[in-house]
Amino acid sequence: RRAHGRERRAQSASALRGVNGGKRLRACLVYATGASLGVSPDRLVAPACAVELVHAYSLVHDDLPCMDNDDLRRGKPTCHKAYDEATALLVGDALQTLAFEVLAAEAAHPALHLRMIYTLARAAGSLGMAGGQAIDLESVGRNLSTVQLEDMHGRKTGALIRASVTLGALAQENLDPTVLATLDTYAHHIGLAYQMTDDILDVEASTHVLGKPQGSDQAKHKPTYPAVLGLALAKERVKEEHAAALASLRSLGDNAKFLNHIADYIVQRSY
Amino acid sequence: RRAHGRERRAQSASALRGVNGGKRLRACLVYATGASLGVSPDRLVAPACAVELVHAYSLVHDDLPCMDNDDLRRGKPTCHKAYDEATALLVGDALQTLAFEVLAAEAAHPALHLRMIYTLARAAGSLGMAGGQAIDLESVGRNLSTVQLEDMHGRKTGALIRASVTLGALAQENLDPTVLATLDTYAHHIGLAYQMTDDILDVEASTHVLGKPQGSDQAKHKPTYPAVLGLALAKERVKEEHAAALASLRSLGDNAKFLNHIADYIVQRSY
Repeated sequence: RRAHGRERRAQSASALRGVNGGKRLRACLVYATGASLGVSPDRLVAPACAVELVHAYSLVHDDLPCMDNDDLRRGKPTCHKAYDEATALLVGDALQTLAFEVLAAEAAHPALHLRMIYTLARAAGSLGMAGGQAIDLESVGRNLSTVQLEDMHGRKTGALIRASVTLGALAQENLDPTVLATLDTYAHHIGLAYQMTDDILDVEASTHVLGKPQGSDQAKHKPTYPAVLGLALAKERVKEEHAAALASLRSLGDNAKFLNHIADYIVQRSY
Repeated sequence: RRAHGRERRAQSASALRGVNGGKRLRACLVYATGASLGVSPDRLVAPACAVELVHAYSLVHDDLPCMDNDDLRRGKPTCHKAYDEATALLVGDALQTLAFEVLAAEAAHPALHLRMIYTLARAAGSLGMAGGQAIDLESVGRNLSTVQLEDMHGRKTGALIRASVTLGALAQENLDPTVLATLDTYAHHIGLAYQMTDDILDVEASTHVLGKPQGSDQAKHKPTYPAVLGLALAKERVKEEHAAALASLRSLGDNAKFLNHIADYIVQRSY
């Protein structure tokens, strides 16, 4: 009965992914951060879309044969499998452009939106996500230290997660810098917890539940937290990062409840 | 002696390309447009860099095996030849990001810069350059009408050329909309003249002078102006577009002298 229930949850999770186009964690972070500061949700639409567009572009390009060469994403064929490589290249390119277009189209608060664009670009570019990808490719088959692994993931996935929180915060005018720093500390810890959980799920979850091939990190000899720390220690670190994320929110009180929920979700998720 | 002189010019042109990283036509357009409106040059640095960064990203991605599969660019090995495909993919991605970062970093005139980002994104995205590339790939080996060919090139190369002129104009606050329309008409005509000249040079110039393989459009069965119109008519159309570009500038008087020079250069260039 228990196995059956688990299977049903997995199927509905898989069906949901097919419909909803991913977890939209980054968009949720924009909204949850905005909510923690009392920002009106309509001011969060553009930044939430923009971070998801950058994330989507990165997935389409990362799945290409010259990168991770993955056939399956969100339970469906990857873009270059469903179409072709040239299409996937252009789709990724155009999705990135659209992210900045969406932020620039909102002209009511030009100074805030310009800061959002700058923040997103810094997180996505050569010092952030794209640079992290380059380090990732270079690290295949090599032994990384924990520090090197954290630096790589801090760029590859952490930078965009932090940018999501910062963008939600920037939607508030006259933001207190100490509040921004607090939120960034939270984002730093959930970014680490997210990637560690991702690595652990790659070892432990099934392809069906993940919506992408299980064990693909190992098969590609990618450095992962379980590989560097061992599985038990990696799980311990997830708990520590989760606790540190929650601790950083304490000064925000009940306003941060959605951010608390997201921290819980990140470490409890099954895909 | 004449052939020798031609060869020497070609060599110095080729050497120059190796050093200077391309013609930088789009940056020149930003500056020339700004100059025609009396804009201070220091307000044109960011938009000039941004359009060149978008152009450079598009070249790196267009040269990839899944796109045009070119080995030579600006007289040197293309990025994926000098490094590898994954690196070229990430370099293109990061160059695009940097274009928007550069425009967002300048916070002195947020509303103007937000409009620049919007203009650049519209020109580069699925309705502009990236969309034109998709049409181009779909058109290989097919017969296009002149209208279809102009639509494709209007997106693929024309949109960024028009954006360069618009960005230079947007640097002026309280810009007269009729002046912007005049400049856009100019940009439309030089964009066409530029692509037609490109297609003609692909037929007539040598690989050495071009810095990329001669005849590669034909070899790839790409629709070109000489292929659709015939070489003689294509050259006639270049003259017409050049004349129309100059005519559109007349109302701007002597202020438009650099824009005039660029129109001349575009149709007289040898690579």
